[in-house]
Amino acid sequence: MVKTMEWRQEGLVLLDQTKLPQSVQYITCKDYRRVCQAIQKLEVRGAPALGAAAAFAMVLAFTATVQTTADIKGPYLAAKEEICAARPTAVNLSWGANLMYAAAQKLAAAGTPVPELAVRLTKLAQQIYDADIATNKKMGAYGAAILPAESVVLTHCNAGALATCGWGTALGVIRSAYALGKIKMVFSDETRPLLQGARLTAWELLADGIPVTTITDGMAAWTMAQKGVNVVITGADRIAANGDAANKIGTFGVALAARHFHVPFYIAAPASTFDFNLASGREIPIEERAPEEVRSVQGVPVAPSHVPVFNPAFDVTPAELISGIITEYGVLRPPFAASIKNLQQQVLKEAHSQWKV
Amino acid sequence: MVKTMEWRQEGLVLLDQTKLPQSVQYITCKDYRRVCQAIQKLEVRGAPALGAAAAFAMVLAFTATVQTTADIKGPYLAAKEEICAARPTAVNLSWGANLMYAAAQKLAAAGTPVPELAVRLTKLAQQIYDADIATNKKMGAYGAAILPAESVVLTHCNAGALATCGWGTALGVIRSAYALGKIKMVFSDETRPLLQGARLTAWELLADGIPVTTITDGMAAWTMAQKGVNVVITGADRIAANGDAANKIGTFGVALAARHFHVPFYIAAPASTFDFNLASGREIPIEERAPEEVRSVQGVPVAPSHVPVFNPAFDVTPAELISGIITEYGVLRPPFAASIKNLQQQVLKEAHSQWKV
Repeated sequence: MVKTMEWRQEGLVLLDQTKLPQSVQYITCKDYRRVCQAIQKLEVRGAPALGAAAAFAMVLAFTATVQTTADIKGPYLAAKEEICAARPTAVNLSWGANLMYAAAQKLAAAGTPVPELAVRLTKLAQQIYDADIATNKKMGAYGAAILPAESVVLTHCNAGALATCGWGTALGVIRSAYALGKIKMVFSDETRPLLQGARLTAWELLADGIPVTTITDGMAAWTMAQKGVNVVITGADRIAANGDAANKIGTFGVALAARHFHVPFYIAAPASTFDFNLASGREIPIEERAPEEVRSVQGVPVAPSHVPVFNPAFDVTPAELISGIITEYGVLRPPFAASIKNLQQQVLKEAHSQWKV
Repeated sequence: MVKTMEWRQEGLVLLDQTKLPQSVQYITCKDYRRVCQAIQKLEVRGAPALGAAAAFAMVLAFTATVQTTADIKGPYLAAKEEICAARPTAVNLSWGANLMYAAAQKLAAAGTPVPELAVRLTKLAQQIYDADIATNKKMGAYGAAILPAESVVLTHCNAGALATCGWGTALGVIRSAYALGKIKMVFSDETRPLLQGARLTAWELLADGIPVTTITDGMAAWTMAQKGVNVVITGADRIAANGDAANKIGTFGVALAARHFHVPFYIAAPASTFDFNLASGREIPIEERAPEEVRSVQGVPVAPSHVPVFNPAFDVTPAELISGIITEYGVLRPPFAASIKNLQQQVLKEAHSQWKV
């Protein structure tokens, strides 16, 4: 399987996802600002992948900004803020950056010298990376268990290996279910404007030999009506304490269609996607991106050059449309206020033991 | 306003809609088979426009196939079948062709000589063309009357001047409402795969100075949630006797979102769009088009070249999601079985007097 990212001596190597599927190209980021740029340009994307990319960016930032431990509160903090601000919606981004920053503070307070600190932060970023893959496999197992025997799945955007450090969230569930012989077909929305479904999900599933059919976003409801779709799974970029879930624009419409056809609508997302401090989806900041993404496709104009555009990158699916949230701790069920509170307690309990710095 | 089609001495001149908005080019069809090709390639499209294009194609076919009136039952009938088969979903296509054919039969039975028959059929096709514009203006007036004072409209595909002989069905209602000062904003779905919304609707509305914002198809539900959309209007390609309506793929999902937000969902369509013989939408044939339409945009690949694709050109919105159907006879309301039966009676009553051949 092609790697989304890899930490090497020379820096963070990213698979350039804007070039797929036509071309497999890599970007070597020696500087945390180049990682921020890659995040903004969607060369690396997907909430869990952004968590790990942020962690590696924090390693690069540490080397660039910290001469003495006193710099941690100054330029390193500023670099962290820059990384967190690269994109506003996915909470995993700040989750990864904050985890790294807290570790740096703790190690510095314990008197760890700067060179050793750099080594230990690198190890922590690697742990975050490895843990993401392990998390996805756990989600895969929990999710595969609840999928129907002959699953005809519909998914939106790319919540696959490419959106994570490997295996995937929604596509991780599909991969695990496929290994159990439970996948009959995966319908993949192309996901305009940036076509992550057509470009990335189709490419990933074809590479693994998992049956996939690409449709345009407007075909989701009719595909459910005509093709026996019996389960919908997507990823998420941020989930509020009440279960409202921000995900790629178009997810909300898919959830409405699933409800109409009484098809279960699942989200697969690691615990790092939950923003326990947000009461509801109304408080999730929604990134709006450049109008050119809508006015053109791969640089080819498809609309009048001066037409006004509304281009939100995400929408918020209300909790009442969600049948379950598949996490590495198990499948959360409604009422989500209670099941998410319970998840938060488990996460807090393990927080001390999980990361070895 | 740019003309969708025009009958000239040399044949039927069509505005090539596949080239818009980048380029305004015309095609001169001297042969009915070229018209069929234009219909298949979507150089001319939109249910009402197809009715008139079919009528003009029948004029061209008459000249090409009829030497003596005996040919009407032979090669002219075959040509008519060819025209009707150009695309399967829009019923207006066969409505226009059949109207012309019936007139040819009637005139021949009355002993009209072939040269005069050709002249009278040309006049009938012109009448169909003119009647379409008049019909659209009537729909516009009926529709404008029921729109909210500060309409924030969402529309899908292009049901505009370009989909008709002029003025438009859904966009005709918007044009008429705009003239009354009732239009605050029109959100236009881009309408993949062929982008009629981004290419044609945006272009038409910008040309008329009507405020328009382009969104991708997946943004419809979120736009309703965020932008105060208070009415949805689309066209239709075929409406069954129970009110189920086939329209451009994606309409069904928009109707589901409208229902979720308690926003009225209207269809604007002339009486020629109704297929009174079909009990329900289940019987409407749905055209599936080439996978390349989904795998690429304007010739640029956007998905793996070998990924399987499902590409239905239309979907069927169930009658229960439709708030009203705006026709040239007034606005039909649920229960549609009754209001459509009533429409059918009015149409039958006028059928004898409407067309002067």
